[in-house]
Amino acid sequence: MKQIRTDLAMEDATGLDRAHMPGVHISEWETGGVTMTEVRVESEEGARLIGKPMGVYITMECPRVKKRDVDARRAVSALLGEELGRLLPPGEGDVLVIGLGNRTVTPDALGPLAVDHTLVTRHLRRERPELTGAMASVCALSPGVMGVTGIESGEIVRAVVGAVSPRAVIAIDSLAARALDRLSSTVQLTDTGIQPGSGVGNHRAALTRETLGVPVLAVGVPMVIHAAALARDAFRLLSDEDESRLDALMRELMDGDLGDMIVTPREVDDLVDNAAVMLAGGINRALHPGLSDEEILTMMQ
Amino acid sequence: MKQIRTDLAMEDATGLDRAHMPGVHISEWETGGVTMTEVRVESEEGARLIGKPMGVYITMECPRVKKRDVDARRAVSALLGEELGRLLPPGEGDVLVIGLGNRTVTPDALGPLAVDHTLVTRHLRRERPELTGAMASVCALSPGVMGVTGIESGEIVRAVVGAVSPRAVIAIDSLAARALDRLSSTVQLTDTGIQPGSGVGNHRAALTRETLGVPVLAVGVPMVIHAAALARDAFRLLSDEDESRLDALMRELMDGDLGDMIVTPREVDDLVDNAAVMLAGGINRALHPGLSDEEILTMMQ
Amino acid sequence: MKQIRTDLAMEDATGLDRAHMPGVHISEWETGGVTMTEVRVESEEGARLIGKPMGVYITMECPRVKKRDVDARRAVSALLGEELGRLLPPGEGDVLVIGLGNRTVTPDALGPLAVDHTLVTRHLRRERPELTGAMASVCALSPGVMGVTGIESGEIVRAVVGAVSPRAVIAIDSLAARALDRLSSTVQLTDTGIQPGSGVGNHRAALTRETLGVPVLAVGVPMVIHAAALARDAFRLLSDEDESRLDALMRELMDGDLGDMIVTPREVDDLVDNAAVMLAGGINRALHPGLSDEEILTMMQ
Amino acid sequence: MKQIRTDLAMEDATGLDRAHMPGVHISEWETGGVTMTEVRVESEEGARLIGKPMGVYITMECPRVKKRDVDARRAVSALLGEELGRLLPPGEGDVLVIGLGNRTVTPDALGPLAVDHTLVTRHLRRERPELTGAMASVCALSPGVMGVTGIESGEIVRAVVGAVSPRAVIAIDSLAARALDRLSSTVQLTDTGIQPGSGVGNHRAALTRETLGVPVLAVGVPMVIHAAALARDAFRLLSDEDESRLDALMRELMDGDLGDMIVTPREVDDLVDNAAVMLAGGINRALHPGLSDEEILTMMQ
Repeated sequence: MKQIRTDLAMEDATGLDRAHMPGVHISEWETGGVTMTEVRVESEEGARLIGKPMGVYITMECPRVKKRDVDARRAVSALLGEELGRLLPPGEGDVLVIGLGNRTVTPDALGPLAVDHTLVTRHLRRERPELTGAMASVCALSPGVMGVTGIESGEIVRAVVGAVSPRAVIAIDSLAARALDRLSSTVQLTDTGIQPGSGVGNHRAALTRETLGVPVLAVGVPMVIHAAALARDAFRLLSDEDESRLDALMRELMDGDLGDMIVTPREVDDLVDNAAVMLAGGINRALHPGLSDEEILTMMQ
Repeated sequence: MKQIRTDLAMEDATGLDRAHMPGVHISEWETGGVTMTEVRVESEEGARLIGKPMGVYITMECPRVKKRDVDARRAVSALLGEELGRLLPPGEGDVLVIGLGNRTVTPDALGPLAVDHTLVTRHLRRERPELTGAMASVCALSPGVMGVTGIESGEIVRAVVGAVSPRAVIAIDSLAARALDRLSSTVQLTDTGIQPGSGVGNHRAALTRETLGVPVLAVGVPMVIHAAALARDAFRLLSDEDESRLDALMRELMDGDLGDMIVTPREVDDLVDNAAVMLAGGINRALHPGLSDEEILTMMQ
Repeated sequence: MKQIRTDLAMEDATGLDRAHMPGVHISEWETGGVTMTEVRVESEEGARLIGKPMGVYITMECPRVKKRDVDARRAVSALLGEELGRLLPPGEGDVLVIGLGNRTVTPDALGPLAVDHTLVTRHLRRERPELTGAMASVCALSPGVMGVTGIESGEIVRAVVGAVSPRAVIAIDSLAARALDRLSSTVQLTDTGIQPGSGVGNHRAALTRETLGVPVLAVGVPMVIHAAALARDAFRLLSDEDESRLDALMRELMDGDLGDMIVTPREVDDLVDNAAVMLAGGINRALHPGLSDEEILTMMQ
Repeated sequence: MKQIRTDLAMEDATGLDRAHMPGVHISEWETGGVTMTEVRVESEEGARLIGKPMGVYITMECPRVKKRDVDARRAVSALLGEELGRLLPPGEGDVLVIGLGNRTVTPDALGPLAVDHTLVTRHLRRERPELTGAMASVCALSPGVMGVTGIESGEIVRAVVGAVSPRAVIAIDSLAARALDRLSSTVQLTDTGIQPGSGVGNHRAALTRETLGVPVLAVGVPMVIHAAALARDAFRLLSDEDESRLDALMRELMDGDLGDMIVTPREVDDLVDNAAVMLAGGINRALHPGLSDEEILTMMQ
């Protein structure tokens, strides 16, 4: 049966029989109130099963983040910083941070907002080389969306990667999830980059090592559920209905505009700001390991 | 069976047997591509049946408005201006326009945004009495929401009504609907004011002739569907399920955060701006009948 | 010779002969990198000399605040909290915080932005009386400006004071200064309230104990210099010119639009945000002495 | 004597003796309430005299635009559309519109805001080739500023020009003027592109035919006066002072922060929005000559 799309690999794995997933390794642990899940997809067969490319997907879940609990947010930032630091290729070159999505569509604004809080240093290092020890050379761009620029965001990113020649790209994007309680409080980090059709805005072009020529780490937080996914999950609870009847019901519901509808918390405006600060905090920690947390927080204000 | 809440009287009437609704009169007509529905609730029995107070509810539906079709938007503005002009008490006194809702929560920002486009003249008329012929004396206020001010918006409005002594209040609010295809393209106008618990933000206090001492006309556009309403409507399609099973399923779904979730179009940011301009256009036409459409559009820019 | 207007009492006193200012007492001290100046105007004669009403004016200057130095900002917040706590009348009643100015005009947005960061509790205390010990009952309102509402902000504030009956009002406003280096890094606190014609937006109505019936403390930060003030100060440097020639030159300059022009730092958007957080930090400390600095910072995020 | 910088060629020419400017041709005319000035710099000697590169500079002045006079704004848009249409190279290829400046610094936001109102079609033409007749293929980008991205805006533009291969670039930027009454009501169009050090934000890199390999037309509106320029012009009025004394006075004034200060109208937030719509209106007319004014206005809403 066709799955409703989620951008979280851990949700793709839910309900599958873990004992019979060749090439997929899932581990879970908890640390400091954050539930960590690592999904490793190590074969093409595993990729088909999960519906996501081969690579590592690390998820951090912390429901307290939703209450704008500053300690919880910092705990997730610190863990993201650690994991991201592990995945980043070592070296001296620039890191380019890309904020995907549409700044004027609230739940899609996560990437541009996180870029606003990223500590950018590339232009300073030329003039003030004494900074080199403590801070990596970081640049950042929010390429906008095709409906506004007329240019696929992937084209712009490829052009700028060609000009800047970074050692790695970190791409930030709003995600779609399947479970309500993951919205705005879950971070996914992956080394597989951005796939076509993912994100709230459904980007067309892939941003991957294949398309950009450098490692691409992708970081995101689910901000929406597609209404159709919610409705189907609701029907699924009626497990004694047969599939054809469910499909007929779905068609009845989808008639009209359900396909364009998203489900969000009412206060998504606040939540996306909060999530952007959390992601930028983790990225800044990973990129500038010579700075203390205190220094990073102060420079982010 | 308990109804899921909608702020549209015409949706409350849907599915009821019109032949057996004593005290409720419903008429429908179409004009210039806009479907008009008038629900007149003329007795307490009718009010109980519909679940809304006695009074007139006029709905204008125009799906083309959603496509940001400027002509459609102007057609609805013109009709709203006419109907509002009919309901406004005649006279020379001030009219106070109130924008309810939270400016920083996108689908709840309709009221404050519409106030931003309202042509305010009260302060000018004192200094430039020659304007008196063409323009009414209009003032406007967005009182904010209790979570931000610590004061019920109704308390602020009552205080300002006491100070300004307007001849009428026009209150603008984001609404919740039940049908997806009414979102952002339907206007409801009523002479019953604002009821407690209505609107996206669930205001506590009533703004009515009883509480304010002057006629209160309320104007709104549905911007959200409560996710719980959507889910229940989905279940209702399974009509052969018995009620107790539906209720159990609902509880399962509501577990977690569904109760706080809203369903909106992805591009709600654009749609709420568009709807605010449409409402303000109608209000400005009703209040300043001495101005031409062209003059109103120019002054609104 | 006619003075160019400043909202800072300490600037009015500059250049006057302190030994011959009956009824005006000026003291200066430094604490933690902040220069404090207290101007006490204790007689009507002093008020005429200074050009400001009788009362206390406390100024905190800290140039490092401009560099978005977080420690400096916190030091000023802490001092403001102390001084404000001393001036606030003791008691259990509500405190009403008023954010004056126009949210959409950057340098005039200080008041509304500071209100956004004020910890508002009045609505919580009714439902959760256990908060009473640590937090005062606080409500807040940004009444907008007359060009937008058609209502003098003073009328709205008076009406809401009548409805809420607070024990004190704290009014926040953007100020105009005369010296460039005071912009965005100086806080003035006074127990004389808001005078007509003060602030960036030139409010018409007074907000004082006389007009509101309760003590009014006013807090502000200079965000602009009137261009005419700057030009006159420039001419004043040419001390060998006689006054009539200076006046002729001024008229030449003012011809055109200089009278409507303001001088601001290029990055005033950032500076006004920073100043709003600093003021709100001080106000929150004064109103909620039972909370630690850490708790206040966390709740303000 | 060193000139204080203006971005308007017509101001550079002011005060020079037109009879003795070899290689500089200035013509002025008026049409529909708009004063047009064309400065043609046709030799290197002329370029040295004027302090601007060889090329054409067309200025449109219309003081009524400042009053948000919609008719005046449309008149300037129409003239800009005509002149821009004349300078654009003919052909079928893409035109890339670049919005320079910092979206979060009000007077520097003109470029990004104008891009928001530009009708972008490049992505549509691929899918809907039937549009080709009436509309050119247009794409648009706001590259941000170096302090935010860590990348010179010129580097980003060069990279995207390399990827898109447009037949021409139109660059939009906020300008600095010398005369108060030109702020927000004057448009300059030039075929010389963007020079280093120009604009409110002082871009470092040139955007010219030499650096980008395609024709670059630049369009801008002065939104600020540098405070130092204003002060020096004030001193210049005192013509009997000798130059060395003026320089000493300037140094006294510049001491402190005058060098970073800008002079703007108080309501610059409104004025920059208005100017952005005016520029985008002209650009849209030039690029889509197959559309009527009415169609363009409707699509821009």
